Amino acid sequence: MIRVAIAGGSGYAGGELLRLLTAHPDADVVQITSERLAGKFAHRAHPNLRGATRLRFRTLGELDECDVLFSCLPHGESARRIDDFRRVAPRVVDLGADFRLSDAAEYERFYGRPHPRPDLLGRFVYGIAELNRGALAEADLVACAGCNATAAILGLRPLYLEGVADSVVVEVKVGSSEAGNRATPGSHHPERSGAMRSYKPTGHRHLAEIRAALGGDIHFSATAVEMVRGVLATCHAFVNRDLDDKALWRIYRRAYAAEPFVRIVKERSGIHRYPDPSLLAGSNYCDVGFERDPSANRVVVLSAIDNLMKGAAGQAVQAFNVMHGLPETRGLEFPGLHPA
Amino acid sequence: MIRVAIAGGSGYAGGELLRLLTAHPDADVVQITSERLAGKFAHRAHPNLRGATRLRFRTLGELDECDVLFSCLPHGESARRIDDFRRVAPRVVDLGADFRLSDAAEYERFYGRPHPRPDLLGRFVYGIAELNRGALAEADLVACAGCNATAAILGLRPLYLEGVADSVVVEVKVGSSEAGNRATPGSHHPERSGAMRSYKPTGHRHLAEIRAALGGDIHFSATAVEMVRGVLATCHAFVNRDLDDKALWRIYRRAYAAEPFVRIVKERSGIHRYPDPSLLAGSNYCDVGFERDPSANRVVVLSAIDNLMKGAAGQAVQAFNVMHGLPETRGLEFPGLHPA
Amino acid sequence: MIRVAIAGGSGYAGGELLRLLTAHPDADVVQITSERLAGKFAHRAHPNLRGATRLRFRTLGELDECDVLFSCLPHGESARRIDDFRRVAPRVVDLGADFRLSDAAEYERFYGRPHPRPDLLGRFVYGIAELNRGALAEADLVACAGCNATAAILGLRPLYLEGVADSVVVEVKVGSSEAGNRATPGSHHPERSGAMRSYKPTGHRHLAEIRAALGGDIHFSATAVEMVRGVLATCHAFVNRDLDDKALWRIYRRAYAAEPFVRIVKERSGIHRYPDPSLLAGSNYCDVGFERDPSANRVVVLSAIDNLMKGAAGQAVQAFNVMHGLPETRGLEFPGLHPA
Amino acid sequence: MIRVAIAGGSGYAGGELLRLLTAHPDADVVQITSERLAGKFAHRAHPNLRGATRLRFRTLGELDECDVLFSCLPHGESARRIDDFRRVAPRVVDLGADFRLSDAAEYERFYGRPHPRPDLLGRFVYGIAELNRGALAEADLVACAGCNATAAILGLRPLYLEGVADSVVVEVKVGSSEAGNRATPGSHHPERSGAMRSYKPTGHRHLAEIRAALGGDIHFSATAVEMVRGVLATCHAFVNRDLDDKALWRIYRRAYAAEPFVRIVKERSGIHRYPDPSLLAGSNYCDVGFERDPSANRVVVLSAIDNLMKGAAGQAVQAFNVMHGLPETRGLEFPGLHPA
Repeated sequence: MIRVAIAGGSGYAGGELLRLLTAHPDADVVQITSERLAGKFAHRAHPNLRGATRLRFRTLGELDECDVLFSCLPHGESARRIDDFRRVAPRVVDLGADFRLSDAAEYERFYGRPHPRPDLLGRFVYGIAELNRGALAEADLVACAGCNATAAILGLRPLYLEGVADSVVVEVKVGSSEAGNRATPGSHHPERSGAMRSYKPTGHRHLAEIRAALGGDIHFSATAVEMVRGVLATCHAFVNRDLDDKALWRIYRRAYAAEPFVRIVKERSGIHRYPDPSLLAGSNYCDVGFERDPSANRVVVLSAIDNLMKGAAGQAVQAFNVMHGLPETRGLEFPGLHPA
Repeated sequence: MIRVAIAGGSGYAGGELLRLLTAHPDADVVQITSERLAGKFAHRAHPNLRGATRLRFRTLGELDECDVLFSCLPHGESARRIDDFRRVAPRVVDLGADFRLSDAAEYERFYGRPHPRPDLLGRFVYGIAELNRGALAEADLVACAGCNATAAILGLRPLYLEGVADSVVVEVKVGSSEAGNRATPGSHHPERSGAMRSYKPTGHRHLAEIRAALGGDIHFSATAVEMVRGVLATCHAFVNRDLDDKALWRIYRRAYAAEPFVRIVKERSGIHRYPDPSLLAGSNYCDVGFERDPSANRVVVLSAIDNLMKGAAGQAVQAFNVMHGLPETRGLEFPGLHPA
Repeated sequence: MIRVAIAGGSGYAGGELLRLLTAHPDADVVQITSERLAGKFAHRAHPNLRGATRLRFRTLGELDECDVLFSCLPHGESARRIDDFRRVAPRVVDLGADFRLSDAAEYERFYGRPHPRPDLLGRFVYGIAELNRGALAEADLVACAGCNATAAILGLRPLYLEGVADSVVVEVKVGSSEAGNRATPGSHHPERSGAMRSYKPTGHRHLAEIRAALGGDIHFSATAVEMVRGVLATCHAFVNRDLDDKALWRIYRRAYAAEPFVRIVKERSGIHRYPDPSLLAGSNYCDVGFERDPSANRVVVLSAIDNLMKGAAGQAVQAFNVMHGLPETRGLEFPGLHPA
Repeated sequence: MIRVAIAGGSGYAGGELLRLLTAHPDADVVQITSERLAGKFAHRAHPNLRGATRLRFRTLGELDECDVLFSCLPHGESARRIDDFRRVAPRVVDLGADFRLSDAAEYERFYGRPHPRPDLLGRFVYGIAELNRGALAEADLVACAGCNATAAILGLRPLYLEGVADSVVVEVKVGSSEAGNRATPGSHHPERSGAMRSYKPTGHRHLAEIRAALGGDIHFSATAVEMVRGVLATCHAFVNRDLDDKALWRIYRRAYAAEPFVRIVKERSGIHRYPDPSLLAGSNYCDVGFERDPSANRVVVLSAIDNLMKGAAGQAVQAFNVMHGLPETRGLEFPGLHPA
């Protein structure tokens, strides 16, 4: 059994990690931390796990040695504590944003401050297995991708691999869990329920990750909609050659036919013709679909995930499986619910 | 024009009052207060009123004389400031809970502390026009009813007037705006969205008002459901005689045939057979329906309102109309939307 | 491996069964039927199972022999085909309503027509394992309980076992998936979204099951609210003796301490103090809580389930496990999501 | 009083028209038709209007002469009956799609069939008052714009008037009422609730209107999200010159400072910084905001409406007011609700 600890485990990504790893046949969750809830049962923060685990939160200072440490601390905190984490565990998987970029200037541009640990830049493997399977197998430091970035990258990557994308406008629609578990005026139910809020029309930090992963001329906007979990990236890709449906199918099949967690969703009829994140809650799938615009050199790519799963905890467990030579789907078999 | 001021106008009831009174042909909103937003435009708190009013918030200390002062201050605050309010305005309409009960012991039992101004108990007219139309016409002090109490009282009153109700179980289902506009862990969208939360199975304060208005053996529970505005009171009334449909129609028609804001909703077929608060958002209606249980001496009474309208600001404006001899529906004509 | 077939597998309960049994280590789903979708892949009706199964629907006429046949046919259809089913499989688990009652008169009273197969009444074991574990272990015919009945029965049973309940008013709040997967004017999204619809204030058929299971003076109403999956039964029990919290805890612990799928949810603080069905989507739990009314002989019991799981497919798999001597939780380990 | 009739009045746009015109001081709704509900009270289809009108539906064949006929018939039907309508009324306002385009080839390209009445093409004035105020004042035939087109056109028009837009990607997010009041598998609540459905990534018919109104290189996709009423158009405009915030403000103020129904919504802080359709339900506003991308020549324009109001019935009444020389806001004063 691989002994794992979860630092910063009272939030939503931490709760998902705990859910997944508690049921994982090869993992033994030995510790979970929360400064605020130290001493309390984990189900105090994660009521779905009542009866599933008897773990109690402890403080970061009480972390014991283990095999893998997952950090779900807020942005900035992982960088501050990374040396402590490495003393505790030979392998660290960070779900925060601190080590996703390898370029210090790009970090400063998008995060508005110098990187706190530039010496570690480039040491972390970006955690999307579909991109970095080989490197993850050898990695001791992993930085999981941002949820919106994950959706956009997996949706668009086949076009970039093929060299057909000229420029792209990515418009993501996201649920409220993306903003974490702290109540704010903007998350107050009467204000947030039913809202369609353009919370980041420009300047979203995940754009830096997307450009780093794909390169090229990419534009990004994000709209919060009525949903708790889920991201749908609608990617308007302008392509440099004429691509018919068959060609697109070939491009996407080549990229994803062997991937256990990427499904191509594109039906001729029915109400589930394209990816829909509402069907993915709790699952680790990224569903990808596409539609070419017959009247323009535009291909609309749809990419859906559960932001807390493939966009965070599920991605981390998938990376954990790869790092340990386990079957990649282990502990990630839940397929999602319908109706949802 | 009647000059009105709104004290504590940055909350949801205050916003509704401002919306209603800005459009009211006989009212002139001269002041609206908020300590937190003093100096800011009203639409900062009430974005729907952008363009409809150029008022700015001021502090309570800056209140000038006016004809009617509406208080939307939190519970306890109106009692503390009532003498100031009466110096400012000859008529005060309180939307809070401080003066709804006239019995000091009952107040202490339900609110957990002695009433701060027992000398004023009994001086306020309870603001439901359907109960106290005559007294409101003469009133200078009005205490608007609690929203759940309003729904339950209007639903059950015909049975009590007729003397047929033995005991009643009232189960109200409420939206999130009932709890006000302050963000809390419980109002955080990922937690509150889709929730079905038994927030007050026993001991709800509105029960005191309902018992005061109706008398008798009444039990009360409240469940928060996915909804922003709206109350549906499902009232299980055990009756002391056999009542067929015709008898029930007679009882309800007698009580409400002439009421402008109470509609009897009871259809034989279709999807809108009974009251549904989702159809009442923004309207001042209380929709009342009923169904007798052929297998028991039970009558199920359904009563629906918009908690911010008939349950707060609309009720206050209706009382205002009665107090000033205006047509009771003035400024309250909006019928609600469908689909909603 | 136990070979199972699902008759009428294109609906919501059938889809949940397919999801559960596909992942069940001891079951092999060999057939699934749908007259409408015969020849199509199962994921056509159950898009969450894309990639999880390659089964195609066939017709009822094409059913082959198997070990257990689950019937998810509409009410009335199972009774019509029961002889065929028994020829195909030695064990039949019916998720419909046809064989839940053992009293022909009661059936006729609630279903409005004579029972089509009175000869089989009493031959089926009512499928709630918590009530009938012993009988299920021997059963070859099982009738799973109605979802609302399941919630009410599991919530109230401890009080009835103890003989303390005098009379009860049960008010259930239900999601839209209860009505099945056929589009109707009432299920049209603009009409159903946000609705609070008293669809069955009296005369609900599940009352017959509740009375059969518990006996006594029970009243029942049902309200459809904004939710897809989930039932919350709020049960107002009038008790014949003074019960303090400790006594209630004792009663509920005695009944449920050893039950794997019933959790007592009753916290002193926090936002998850009582059962909430939104946390149970996809899980087989029944969460039960209670609150006594200090001002009356009333105990409010809250009981929450996922109607498609503990209220249908999960209950069926739990019964299947008991029938085959398997660990009762097998294939039912998913704990639900938070946030949901 | 202007005598108006509503043909095809049982749908959602017809219901909104009836709500607006019943309360309109200068209009007298004399007739409303529905073949299916002929003889029934209007509130059978429009439950919010219970008590507001005693009109009953009649058939199209029973239409009497009146001053203005509003047609809410399905696409294709208005064209088929236009001669009858013109015999009944000197002025016809069509809310359907039949006469929005003036180019027969473009109609055929987007609607997939030849235009049924090419002789009338160009005879109708496109009903957006902000574009065609002068022409509407003289018009006897008006074709109201599609809802998505209205949002996109009003959002982008200032940039086109100024000649700064090179190419645009418009991504609209829409509520379920856009698809009308007929239940379909896709509108079934368990399927539609919480869905994020890319129902028209390419080839949306409203694109034809947008191109006709604005010209230029415009791309369009539509996603259905959890919402009943509302459209948010997120328009990614690539501009041909460097525009700072001040320049954009100037462009938008120039276009809209005098418009009663277009509000520029762009705040530096707070949760209502940009247009949000959830605040517009029932109102005739189009809220427009913008944000320039400092890292690209991109301006993100946000444009929000209620699809049934500014996108249908409200637009029609606004046109009606212009046609009759009435104040443009008459009967359209409702500002929307908050919280919503």
